[in-house]
Amino acid sequence: MNCKKRGRQTVALACPPVLTGWASVAGKKEAQGPLADTFTQTSPDDTFGQSSWEKAESEMQRLALSAALDRAGVAASRLDFVLAGDLLNQCIGTGFAMRSVGAPFYGLYGACSTMAESLSLAALLLDGGFGTLAAALTSSHFCSAERQYRTPLEYGGQRTPTAQWTVTGSGAVVLSAQGGGPRVTHVTTGRIVDKGIKDPANMGAAMAPAAYDTIRAHLTDTGHKPSDYDLIVTGDLGKLGREIVWDFFHRDGVDLNHLVDCGMLIYDLESQDVHCGGSGCGCSAAVLCGHLLDGLNAGRWNNILFCGTGALLSPTSTMQGESIPSICHAVSLASPKGEGGF
Amino acid sequence: MNCKKRGRQTVALACPPVLTGWASVAGKKEAQGPLADTFTQTSPDDTFGQSSWEKAESEMQRLALSAALDRAGVAASRLDFVLAGDLLNQCIGTGFAMRSVGAPFYGLYGACSTMAESLSLAALLLDGGFGTLAAALTSSHFCSAERQYRTPLEYGGQRTPTAQWTVTGSGAVVLSAQGGGPRVTHVTTGRIVDKGIKDPANMGAAMAPAAYDTIRAHLTDTGHKPSDYDLIVTGDLGKLGREIVWDFFHRDGVDLNHLVDCGMLIYDLESQDVHCGGSGCGCSAAVLCGHLLDGLNAGRWNNILFCGTGALLSPTSTMQGESIPSICHAVSLASPKGEGGF
Repeated sequence: MNCKKRGRQTVALACPPVLTGWASVAGKKEAQGPLADTFTQTSPDDTFGQSSWEKAESEMQRLALSAALDRAGVAASRLDFVLAGDLLNQCIGTGFAMRSVGAPFYGLYGACSTMAESLSLAALLLDGGFGTLAAALTSSHFCSAERQYRTPLEYGGQRTPTAQWTVTGSGAVVLSAQGGGPRVTHVTTGRIVDKGIKDPANMGAAMAPAAYDTIRAHLTDTGHKPSDYDLIVTGDLGKLGREIVWDFFHRDGVDLNHLVDCGMLIYDLESQDVHCGGSGCGCSAAVLCGHLLDGLNAGRWNNILFCGTGALLSPTSTMQGESIPSICHAVSLASPKGEGGF
Repeated sequence: MNCKKRGRQTVALACPPVLTGWASVAGKKEAQGPLADTFTQTSPDDTFGQSSWEKAESEMQRLALSAALDRAGVAASRLDFVLAGDLLNQCIGTGFAMRSVGAPFYGLYGACSTMAESLSLAALLLDGGFGTLAAALTSSHFCSAERQYRTPLEYGGQRTPTAQWTVTGSGAVVLSAQGGGPRVTHVTTGRIVDKGIKDPANMGAAMAPAAYDTIRAHLTDTGHKPSDYDLIVTGDLGKLGREIVWDFFHRDGVDLNHLVDCGMLIYDLESQDVHCGGSGCGCSAAVLCGHLLDGLNAGRWNNILFCGTGALLSPTSTMQGESIPSICHAVSLASPKGEGGF
């Protein structure tokens, strides 16, 4: 078989898989933000009817996957692969959600890059001819993340200006070897980049160099110009991280004026007290599986480069004085209505 | 492209990737066990020269990958994909080990199934034509696992008879689209199985139904008979879990007399006070990337079915009264010297 790899980190898919169904689930704060109308389902109290925040997070994944499958008109039992993960220790949000699915499953850990990672691997597995249907999904929950990474909610800890707010949300997408819908045309696999940032309340700065590295690799590998994309979407660098990426490209003589960040799209930064914006696996997942894919499907945009960014730290690594290894995976998405798309 | 999938969960690889290099790293207790001579490197004090157990675990991954690359005669910079994960919260053993590698990286979480999961995905990505070189690796460390999952070492907690001992070890393998060495011929992706076991000190019983489910799926999908394999190797069910799998097949009228378990191979269960045997991602990784691949390469065995088993629990899920979702991924490996192999 001929190798389809086009560059050091990028694969151009020979038979671009189609996104035939997607759905997003989000919490109360997200339902008060600018993307409120794009979520498939929300919860007025963030519990989703469950007795713990961790169980609520699992429930969000179940709801998102179920709705995405419904939209695709596919039963879970027909899925050849499910690729999923989350931020919780040992990824229990995902492990427990998958109990009821019964499909072949690969668990992932990519922190907030998980939506892009799961989408990448699902697309590669279908393009490789190893199956015809796959699902990619992830989640995060503000309350389960706070008590795991920082302090229990009851403690009421202060947040620094560079902090981001973990999104309560989930997004799921169903990929098919055939059918109508947005297509995955290219997958760029990220490398670990660590520039020495040690502040866990400044993950935007830690992840920005990884986003720069992967976007640059994607453009080099493919020969695409930034202007070939209607949107280059990072998730979730927040306000500061996005500025850093913009600055890096500006120094290279490239103005990424259509660079947007899922962490800035999901909240109103002025009024919602989220400081630099949203974060968490569920942030880019919920923005992708609603706002972005809806727009792409409707032809609002022709091509989007979706760049999931992850900070691969833990409370233990922070306590041991380590800096934050970061990663970014990029997926090029094309509208079914686009002309001159890749 | 024709779909290569042969059954519900199993892919028969069209161009079986070759394992061109592998290496294992292990701790002091493992170096006192029956596989002592098969490890590439060991440490007399389990620190590997590092200042924390977590850093020691990362160092084991670096050492294992470096030695596997040396054996394959490949520079890390030539790797198209690295697939890896571990047991630590947020997989920091892997995240930090990857800082120095610089290759495209996908992070995985599959608990003790991670070696089989990483090997599966690496083989699929190469067979799909997405690259020509990949690495798969994982690790665990007794001391980092004890303080994360159970009690600090200093506490000296009692262990129940069904408990397993987390292996201090790592294993890494380099896969190539071409070359000489053992081949990956089939990949069977596992499903989550949860039969309601809630005792985190009895993971063998929790994981055994997942191992049974995947081995049975593999045999059904491929039409292989158990006797087509010289070894069916689970990792890491321990003594009790292995007996349960054997019993399940016996009820089906099948005697799996060549069923062995990495958790039983790596220690002397009579003399090393490990109760039901070894566990941890590093257990099956270190046994595969030494004892098993050395033997397969030398023609001691023609075909091995390597079945990595994972218990997807966390201390939080246990405290919340949840049972243990489990998974098993199986990889069929063929000797370069085998006749009549798959």
